[in-house]
Amino acid sequence: MNANTLRAVVYIASLCGLYLSIAMLVPAMVDLYYGHPDWRVFTTCAFMVGGVSLLAAMATRGAPPMFTKRLGFLLVNVLWAVFSLAGAVPFMFSDADLSFAQALFESISGITTTGSTVIVGLDSMPPGLLMWRSLLAWLGGIGIVALGLFVLPFLRVGGMSFFKMESSDTSDKPFARLATFTRAFIAIYVGITLACAISYALAGMSRFDAINHAFSTVATAGFSTHDASFDYFKSNAVLWVSTFFMTISSLPFSILIVLAVRGRLDALRDPQIGVFLGYVIAFSLSAAIYNHLRNGEPFPDALTHAFFNFSSILSTTGFSSQDYLGWGPFTVMAAFFATFIGGCSGSTAGGIKAYRFVILFNILGTGLKKLIYPNAVYSVRYGSQTVDAETQRTVFLFFSAYIFLWVLGSMAMAALGYDMMTSTSAVITALSNVGPGVSPQIGPVGNFSSFNDPELYVMSIMMLLGRLEILTVLVLLMPIFWRN
Amino acid sequence: MNANTLRAVVYIASLCGLYLSIAMLVPAMVDLYYGHPDWRVFTTCAFMVGGVSLLAAMATRGAPPMFTKRLGFLLVNVLWAVFSLAGAVPFMFSDADLSFAQALFESISGITTTGSTVIVGLDSMPPGLLMWRSLLAWLGGIGIVALGLFVLPFLRVGGMSFFKMESSDTSDKPFARLATFTRAFIAIYVGITLACAISYALAGMSRFDAINHAFSTVATAGFSTHDASFDYFKSNAVLWVSTFFMTISSLPFSILIVLAVRGRLDALRDPQIGVFLGYVIAFSLSAAIYNHLRNGEPFPDALTHAFFNFSSILSTTGFSSQDYLGWGPFTVMAAFFATFIGGCSGSTAGGIKAYRFVILFNILGTGLKKLIYPNAVYSVRYGSQTVDAETQRTVFLFFSAYIFLWVLGSMAMAALGYDMMTSTSAVITALSNVGPGVSPQIGPVGNFSSFNDPELYVMSIMMLLGRLEILTVLVLLMPIFWRN
Repeated sequence: MNANTLRAVVYIASLCGLYLSIAMLVPAMVDLYYGHPDWRVFTTCAFMVGGVSLLAAMATRGAPPMFTKRLGFLLVNVLWAVFSLAGAVPFMFSDADLSFAQALFESISGITTTGSTVIVGLDSMPPGLLMWRSLLAWLGGIGIVALGLFVLPFLRVGGMSFFKMESSDTSDKPFARLATFTRAFIAIYVGITLACAISYALAGMSRFDAINHAFSTVATAGFSTHDASFDYFKSNAVLWVSTFFMTISSLPFSILIVLAVRGRLDALRDPQIGVFLGYVIAFSLSAAIYNHLRNGEPFPDALTHAFFNFSSILSTTGFSSQDYLGWGPFTVMAAFFATFIGGCSGSTAGGIKAYRFVILFNILGTGLKKLIYPNAVYSVRYGSQTVDAETQRTVFLFFSAYIFLWVLGSMAMAALGYDMMTSTSAVITALSNVGPGVSPQIGPVGNFSSFNDPELYVMSIMMLLGRLEILTVLVLLMPIFWRN
Repeated sequence: MNANTLRAVVYIASLCGLYLSIAMLVPAMVDLYYGHPDWRVFTTCAFMVGGVSLLAAMATRGAPPMFTKRLGFLLVNVLWAVFSLAGAVPFMFSDADLSFAQALFESISGITTTGSTVIVGLDSMPPGLLMWRSLLAWLGGIGIVALGLFVLPFLRVGGMSFFKMESSDTSDKPFARLATFTRAFIAIYVGITLACAISYALAGMSRFDAINHAFSTVATAGFSTHDASFDYFKSNAVLWVSTFFMTISSLPFSILIVLAVRGRLDALRDPQIGVFLGYVIAFSLSAAIYNHLRNGEPFPDALTHAFFNFSSILSTTGFSSQDYLGWGPFTVMAAFFATFIGGCSGSTAGGIKAYRFVILFNILGTGLKKLIYPNAVYSVRYGSQTVDAETQRTVFLFFSAYIFLWVLGSMAMAALGYDMMTSTSAVITALSNVGPGVSPQIGPVGNFSSFNDPELYVMSIMMLLGRLEILTVLVLLMPIFWRN
């Protein structure tokens, strides 16, 4: 790790800080529009963060270093750290009056598109602050899709490479294609957000709510402008609109692009899409039937709420329309395990992710066959492709690291005094970037306002680890990473 | 799978049923000695089971089939099924008055050395019945060590092959060595049991209690003759004797043999031993310090109870001396996760097992290094040996299958109406063959008497799956296993 690399990392991070400071002018304008004095806070923060970023950027300008894997790993970590810190500044100085740990938690919860909150009384918060939360999540969503499509496949940590997927193309200008692809991605991300906002408005939301929830939905974040989340709207139409857009946003954006730009329907054949939709339907249907049979909830309503709340967990969004923990022990258990699973790779969703389960179950199946016929050759498949040994190993690394981190985090939370259900579900909801846990305190009708600083830091670390696919962060702990 | 194979499997299973029927004469003699009329029950059961077994054995005699992997897998499953069913017979007809599901549960709990019980009022149960429980566990312990040392390595499911370990030997007579080895193993198993019983008696147990608990300790089962388990004795000496023997019994018997027969101290260098003792000390010490600081328990007592109860969980025994769930949320969480871990391979302990963790953490470490330097060659090591790709794959298969089964089982328990703590901990305590869970109902001062038939069947399946290292059972579900 040489000095030029470190300089370049600081330089790029400063540029990102600068962009984020410009984004702070959006909530400033919102507050100004609604006549709330907090616009001064956001403007001041924008100049503070922007000024520091500009100075840092000027001090670290220079020739670009060679792009290595180590630079890639370091850059990803530093970028998300800068986003987290810069994003926290307005929370500390705004009306919400949060401590540093709380502001950092709220910022990380946004930028990682988790959507857990420490703020109570959202309904009476200044509109700029609410917009800042939604905007952080929305920008975090862009960041994570870009990471999943362009960076993580290069680092071999995870994600499905767009270029690999498109290897049948004969184009020999990858960077020209990268530019086209980036424009297409931004256009589609903005397009889906607009479509979502308009649909919410048509279904009865106010304009402000529609825009904020659209940001939060497409980013699969889960921040709401109301303490009661989607229970506030009391509208099945709103719930189905949300279910649709949460699900869309959990699909690989590369495939949405291929679909939209080239009209190639065959792109939907990606096995992870079928698996993801499969378990969304399985969880939702069984929860609906359970709620109907056990509590006598009319089936159409049971279906609406089951699909909304389980799409919300499995897409790692974290909105809620009811206290599904009250439906019975089966839904508590289902919600708990659903929190581990997550959406598709290359989307804004977190969790272990569907493509890893496709590969895991394939490894399991071929492994069992190999026990019976040790000399037969069975290849692990992902759709029509063969999964090479390195990808299998990375999936395994990720899966076991995920479980170990969950165990470590849960032990830490228990040592801080939390019961088993709160400890285990708080850590997994952070790691998977979902939002709510499964104990009353932090469940769908709870929040994280009762958490003290130490547990907020544990949660913050878990959210970042999960969002950066764990291994990206863990490599920084290896001494050999820093050598030479 | 041809007819001759099936015939041979039934034949060997019948012989085992015959042996088990002879074992039923032991509790019969115990009841006779103590003047309890239940001796008639055991004698009748012995003749019933023995008669059926003898008839089946005579009907299926014939030339031995070629020993294939498929025969091996089938045989292991059928043997444990026969042990489970035959072992259940006395429970159904004895004073305990158990239903079929309860009797089967109690028998499987014994034969798999789990030690969970559905019987309340142990203190007033007939001595023969108590002896039958201990004996089942003790015989199950022999079975499982034999399985781990001789069969599973051959099936490539798990376990550390004795022959592999001893590959430096130049002997070319494996079967002669197998016979020597088996004799040495039985001698040591009996020797440790005797030493344990004598130590218990010296520490103050009655002769009957000492023998029963010695059986249960060396098998790392956890059946007690008292509802209060080790809290009944109110003796720190008894607790330390038990801690010592539970720990010894979680070490690989192959190594105990090498140590005892050849006096080779270097055998203790097996990495899993260090790791196992390491986490026993880590869990026990942190629980002791926690209990001391949080509840003001005097440190020597806190240490005694922490070492006893956590050795009990980590050795997958399941005795208890206190309601450690009451020490605070940290010990609940620690007990829960400790239930997954287990002892060493080739011992009577269950769980994921120390050698798999050694390999898992090695895979994780080399995997992270490979992310930084993709072209460097890092081999996964187990001590001084290199772990081949197939072993790595099997460890991974086992680990993920373990987690998936735990998830499935927990969902089933929740659907049957149990809360999250009961569901998740009941399933893992069964799968790891430990004994108690971490909710009040099934915890260290609870038992499984309140479970209805469906949940007892779920638990019974989990105990067998865990005991047979999961993959051994799962291969039977593959259609290709049964083809041709």
